[in-house]
Amino acid sequence: MDMSANSTSTTRLICNLLDEYADCLDSDSLEKWPELFLENGRYLIQSRENLEARLDGGHWMYYTSQGMMRDRVTSLRHINTFNKHYYRHLISNIKISEQDDKSFHVRSNFLVVQTDFEGKFECISAGEYRDVIIMVDGKPMFKEKLVIPDTFHTASAVVYPL
Amino acid sequence: MDMSANSTSTTRLICNLLDEYADCLDSDSLEKWPELFLENGRYLIQSRENLEARLDGGHWMYYTSQGMMRDRVTSLRHINTFNKHYYRHLISNIKISEQDDKSFHVRSNFLVVQTDFEGKFECISAGEYRDVIIMVDGKPMFKEKLVIPDTFHTASAVVYPL
Amino acid sequence: MDMSANSTSTTRLICNLLDEYADCLDSDSLEKWPELFLENGRYLIQSRENLEARLDGGHWMYYTSQGMMRDRVTSLRHINTFNKHYYRHLISNIKISEQDDKSFHVRSNFLVVQTDFEGKFECISAGEYRDVIIMVDGKPMFKEKLVIPDTFHTASAVVYPL
Repeated sequence: MDMSANSTSTTRLICNLLDEYADCLDSDSLEKWPELFLENGRYLIQSRENLEARLDGGHWMYYTSQGMMRDRVTSLRHINTFNKHYYRHLISNIKISEQDDKSFHVRSNFLVVQTDFEGKFECISAGEYRDVIIMVDGKPMFKEKLVIPDTFHTASAVVYPL
Repeated sequence: MDMSANSTSTTRLICNLLDEYADCLDSDSLEKWPELFLENGRYLIQSRENLEARLDGGHWMYYTSQGMMRDRVTSLRHINTFNKHYYRHLISNIKISEQDDKSFHVRSNFLVVQTDFEGKFECISAGEYRDVIIMVDGKPMFKEKLVIPDTFHTASAVVYPL
Repeated sequence: MDMSANSTSTTRLICNLLDEYADCLDSDSLEKWPELFLENGRYLIQSRENLEARLDGGHWMYYTSQGMMRDRVTSLRHINTFNKHYYRHLISNIKISEQDDKSFHVRSNFLVVQTDFEGKFECISAGEYRDVIIMVDGKPMFKEKLVIPDTFHTASAVVYPL
């Protein structure tokens, strides 16, 4: 079921959540990323090849709680070593399907552009987001975010969430 | 004339049509593509160079009925030989102009990213869509879709509709 | 403060302004570009590196009135020599924050694709727009547009506004 005409504000809140997601990654505010999820929220990256081949184990990232996402942020801030770089997300073709009045399936297309420390600029991933979003006290949160890059080949290591 | 403020649901329906168009190409559901057009709908691809030079014959694709589009799909499925690849569409800057209460001119910008079977990932085309969309029993359909890539040079053959 | 639910038409007007901005650059209607600004409007391009390093002088373009922008257009039309090329803007992730009922802070992500005269096609810049938009007699206009490319390295000279 598609959104009814009177749900303009819900549509806007959901689009805002997608933008906040992109913005915390693009502006290096990684600590905000887990806060967009439910406590038992899931964040998964699985390439299109693996998904279509039903290879359930082939995830790039597989986090099944906010705590695991916070661990990832801690690791990125203090443990992992990688070349500094920026992301820039373009999210388009957002389609919202209402499941019930507090639960939404949302799919969208994404393109991630990466700029490295020397200023080199490259499109590193395109694909699809499939999100399950829940309204909690009028605020939308991710129950699940499944990121499906069109290929597992990338010009660069994927260090941050996509 | 731009859309009036009370036409939020019409705006959403039209944006959904653009998303369905992209989605049937991106998800290899080609059979759905002709169904988005009127029976006598037109699908045209003409490069910006040719359009600006008023070279009316220089179309990459020129279909003037749903039947011609279905033929193309049959050909792609059973006759043409090409390297398997995926598309990913980013559509933005959508502008809707109401002609009358059932007819709309819609322009938007597009970027098509292609991923080939080996996983190589490339932006293959950017340009503009100029659509004429008609409401039929409350459902928007393409009367005409004119695709204008910014150049007729592409890194790859254009096999699918853009 | 985010937009209230009853401001759908304002949202649409503001998105239309962003589209008009892109369109006048993409369709080589440069003369329309200064007209989207207030008489004392500001148009600034500053790279992310310079902004984050607080290098206030490191602007690529720094115009503090409509007149300076018109000068730029005159210069581009009659004085500057450069290879002919097209832009194509993809603008997404638009976030509107209402300051008061006539004043809005709007941020968005952009990708600019350039096509040169020989047909070469390249993503030349991605980054963020930070706009201050004022409603004048029901029509939105830029009071300030700050363009922040993610890097000052580009594959090509930036001749037109981004």
